Amino acid sequence: MDKNLNKNDGSSGSPFRERGGYIPYNEIAGQKTTRIEAISDGVFAVALTLLVLDIKVPLSEAIKTDHGLFNAFCALTPKFLSYFLSFMTLGIFWTGHSAQYIYMEKSDRHLNWLSLFFLLFVSLLPFTTAFLSEYITFKLAIGVYWLNIFALGTMLYIHWTYAFNHGYINLPKDKKQAVSLAIKRRIVIAQTLYAIGALLCFVNNYVSVGVIIVIQLNYAIAFGFRKKKKFTAY
Amino acid sequence: MDKNLNKNDGSSGSPFRERGGYIPYNEIAGQKTTRIEAISDGVFAVALTLLVLDIKVPLSEAIKTDHGLFNAFCALTPKFLSYFLSFMTLGIFWTGHSAQYIYMEKSDRHLNWLSLFFLLFVSLLPFTTAFLSEYITFKLAIGVYWLNIFALGTMLYIHWTYAFNHGYINLPKDKKQAVSLAIKRRIVIAQTLYAIGALLCFVNNYVSVGVIIVIQLNYAIAFGFRKKKKFTAY
Amino acid sequence: MDKNLNKNDGSSGSPFRERGGYIPYNEIAGQKTTRIEAISDGVFAVALTLLVLDIKVPLSEAIKTDHGLFNAFCALTPKFLSYFLSFMTLGIFWTGHSAQYIYMEKSDRHLNWLSLFFLLFVSLLPFTTAFLSEYITFKLAIGVYWLNIFALGTMLYIHWTYAFNHGYINLPKDKKQAVSLAIKRRIVIAQTLYAIGALLCFVNNYVSVGVIIVIQLNYAIAFGFRKKKKFTAY
Amino acid sequence: MDKNLNKNDGSSGSPFRERGGYIPYNEIAGQKTTRIEAISDGVFAVALTLLVLDIKVPLSEAIKTDHGLFNAFCALTPKFLSYFLSFMTLGIFWTGHSAQYIYMEKSDRHLNWLSLFFLLFVSLLPFTTAFLSEYITFKLAIGVYWLNIFALGTMLYIHWTYAFNHGYINLPKDKKQAVSLAIKRRIVIAQTLYAIGALLCFVNNYVSVGVIIVIQLNYAIAFGFRKKKKFTAY
Repeated sequence: MDKNLNKNDGSSGSPFRERGGYIPYNEIAGQKTTRIEAISDGVFAVALTLLVLDIKVPLSEAIKTDHGLFNAFCALTPKFLSYFLSFMTLGIFWTGHSAQYIYMEKSDRHLNWLSLFFLLFVSLLPFTTAFLSEYITFKLAIGVYWLNIFALGTMLYIHWTYAFNHGYINLPKDKKQAVSLAIKRRIVIAQTLYAIGALLCFVNNYVSVGVIIVIQLNYAIAFGFRKKKKFTAY
Repeated sequence: MDKNLNKNDGSSGSPFRERGGYIPYNEIAGQKTTRIEAISDGVFAVALTLLVLDIKVPLSEAIKTDHGLFNAFCALTPKFLSYFLSFMTLGIFWTGHSAQYIYMEKSDRHLNWLSLFFLLFVSLLPFTTAFLSEYITFKLAIGVYWLNIFALGTMLYIHWTYAFNHGYINLPKDKKQAVSLAIKRRIVIAQTLYAIGALLCFVNNYVSVGVIIVIQLNYAIAFGFRKKKKFTAY
Repeated sequence: MDKNLNKNDGSSGSPFRERGGYIPYNEIAGQKTTRIEAISDGVFAVALTLLVLDIKVPLSEAIKTDHGLFNAFCALTPKFLSYFLSFMTLGIFWTGHSAQYIYMEKSDRHLNWLSLFFLLFVSLLPFTTAFLSEYITFKLAIGVYWLNIFALGTMLYIHWTYAFNHGYINLPKDKKQAVSLAIKRRIVIAQTLYAIGALLCFVNNYVSVGVIIVIQLNYAIAFGFRKKKKFTAY
Repeated sequence: MDKNLNKNDGSSGSPFRERGGYIPYNEIAGQKTTRIEAISDGVFAVALTLLVLDIKVPLSEAIKTDHGLFNAFCALTPKFLSYFLSFMTLGIFWTGHSAQYIYMEKSDRHLNWLSLFFLLFVSLLPFTTAFLSEYITFKLAIGVYWLNIFALGTMLYIHWTYAFNHGYINLPKDKKQAVSLAIKRRIVIAQTLYAIGALLCFVNNYVSVGVIIVIQLNYAIAFGFRKKKKFTAY
């Protein structure tokens, strides 16, 4: 049904499931979530793939042997590091965003715009990644990158809160609050850890990037093999 | 059903729901809308993400301190401004285009082509954006950008009108005219405001861009928190 | 049902609709068509949007007035021309490819590969377009562009023939041959016209490009407003 | 059902099909597979299309005749070769990955992450392709390209194994082991052949690339026209 909310099945003359002539407001204002899910997947897919454009094939007349090429290849390490970092970042936020839609039964124009603003910061990530990989020893580069992560987390939090407050979340009443709290807490804890990781740039930038990657790996992998909880908050 | 118009369910020998041997014309000519929706989401997703390619990481031997990098970063302000502007533009037209499909029960080849011509101007936007950000003080740059917005609005208007006149809109008869008028009026009013915003370039280009962004924010955000109307025209 | 061919509905223990213990071969070998449709839409969407990367913002210290910028803008005409040309080309072949799937009830690995080889030439088009726009006065550039169109048409023809011969086309028996012939004839006629258009490069390259655009507009627009035929072959 | 696992049909108050008050764990933890399938198709589509960016239009003041242009065009042969090679690589791994989802009835967060890590290497391929085409005579370039293929195969193997072991594969019990073995064996055999192909770089790099392409063509085409087997393992 979610696939064609507001669309009829071709056999009736109306897209609204009229019940005794009354057209419930929500069935007019509410939208299927497929389109916003599709454009989100699209933006994430392009952003994930554009990241690689920052890793440029070394071009030098001086490269004449496999050994010389190997050295040039190794010089790309910061690029590979930030590629990996940003792939993880995008993976985590794609997981977080798409997980919200597991419970979301419909959408509206405002929720779509909250997703679009979230995607605005997804699209920015290839830039902040390139900025970081170019100036990996500068505190400002860490700061800008962290701001991007912070904006993504903030939008995700607002997105969930809006959907929850407008009754778009479809969960059994007794579990609703618990799931919502778990989702919000997960965002807050992750953002706190990222902030700590970013602040470590005052010690050393590589430590900072390293710690953020470890935090991300924790979310991507480690959590996964812990004892299964009854409700996963993603 | 809209997912597999003209496809049978595997159990019958025909993709047409034959009713007493008669094959209704519309079920042959009419198409599911999923494919044109998918390619639209794809083009928008790529265009949204390509915008960031215009923001290039500053490369300079002279950048040696965080302070120098901060100055170089701030010099990107016009790029961020036009990135934001164009993200809003694409978001608004994606919302407008996808909103029409909420009510659209099927499509045909001509409607698909109207969407494709619409997408032609969506794809152009990363160029007109880069053109604007490079020559933000030139009236021509504002003019070209406005022409792009105008073409998008015009195609959207034609798209709806064609679908409406060919009976592809699935709304209760008594609401049909009202919704159609609301959709058309919304496009005309928005385009009038954009034209006024563009004409302000004869005062000052930054004023012009600023006013267009304010108009867009109004459509994206402000309208959203006004009192809910019974029919949203997007 | 086509959405989850080979997937059960969660209530039975098998993805195959077992009928009395017998598992029909086709339900094992046959696949849903959604994935190949999705990647096709994706490749087309990216190719359509990459085309614009060939239109580069003119960068020159000499541009100091709106008049100078206007001249630089006008110098982009061949780029806009080939952008439009290739958008039409991609639109036509997307329409042709997706139209085949209206009648296609399932797919197999070989049909998927035929689609992938078709997409190989879709992906090439941004290159052949850039090659044409750069060397628009060279016969070779027309030749290479035409080869790309020819390869697309050939793959489309093979794609349909394979699907038809393997019984993946779901049409009423009495209409099957007529629709198939119409689809094949349409490809052959279009390719003949494109070949004539390309050969006109021996007269003049702009004539050649102009004629190809006219042929394309005919397929995209003119045909659309002729009297409706009972079977559209796309 | 797979389209809206965890979503209700709008008529009931709960996304979970509660059976006598009991909420089965799997219906909470399990997810529909549409989102991960969508982002996979997206990443593959972008990667397939980005490959062409490596084929750059020859720009030279010296090109003045069709003959000169022809020579410049022919000089692109290694670029076309590696474009074709990588299109085949991506096609094969897209086929392999999407084929697993034919049998996959649901997904979870960890399986999604395994797919994301798989996509990380899909996204890298445009880089390793450009690296290969630039340094096609260097053993290191073959080695790096092979590593990419190896990583893709390894992730695919782990992906299937995880899904199989967690009971996400929906096949009749008596066929389950046979299909699983066939899928795993196919990956192992293909990877062995690729490794042999890569090792041939110690003879000659062009021989190595040529053999890998032949292996790929075998998987894409030759297998396709052999006698149909009852179970295709892709």
